[in-house]
Amino acid sequence: MNQGWTERQRPVRLERRLEFADYEATRDFLDRAASLSERVGIYPDMSFGRTYVNITLHAEDDATALGEPLRHFAREIDALLATEKTLDE
Amino acid sequence: MNQGWTERQRPVRLERRLEFADYEATRDFLDRAASLSERVGIYPDMSFGRTYVNITLHAEDDATALGEPLRHFAREIDALLATEKTLDE
Repeated sequence: MNQGWTERQRPVRLERRLEFADYEATRDFLDRAASLSERVGIYPDMSFGRTYVNITLHAEDDATALGEPLRHFAREIDALLATEKTLDE
Repeated sequence: MNQGWTERQRPVRLERRLEFADYEATRDFLDRAASLSERVGIYPDMSFGRTYVNITLHAEDDATALGEPLRHFAREIDALLATEKTLDE
């Protein structure tokens, strides 16, 4: 996974903040992330404004560790970003 | 404005939470809200998951009251929702 991801406890989750050059790039990323969610059936909590997106991947309700499906989803987000204009690389 | 909007202070802002039947309805709303943002040049802070969207409209940096552009934007969101499947009406 990209080192931009932060693993946190209580509750167990993965977080990443992304910055974009403009709203068009932000919206393009959100569209592609939405298609990914529909394809794999994982729906992160996302917050965004004009040029930022925060992604939070929560582990299953009483899980004590992040399962492979979430780690895989994080890597798929990284792959989306590899072809995107972000400001944080 | 729909009574679902809550006006808050420190900082001055308008907030509204929406619930949707499924991700398809959530995504459709987010797409239309994004087009509205691009049309009027107002970009609220939004957070969402599979079936909810929280909208926060912040007043200009040192404003002490919500200006008409934000109230107008809130009414435009209400108009989008009037044609949407939401669960909170």
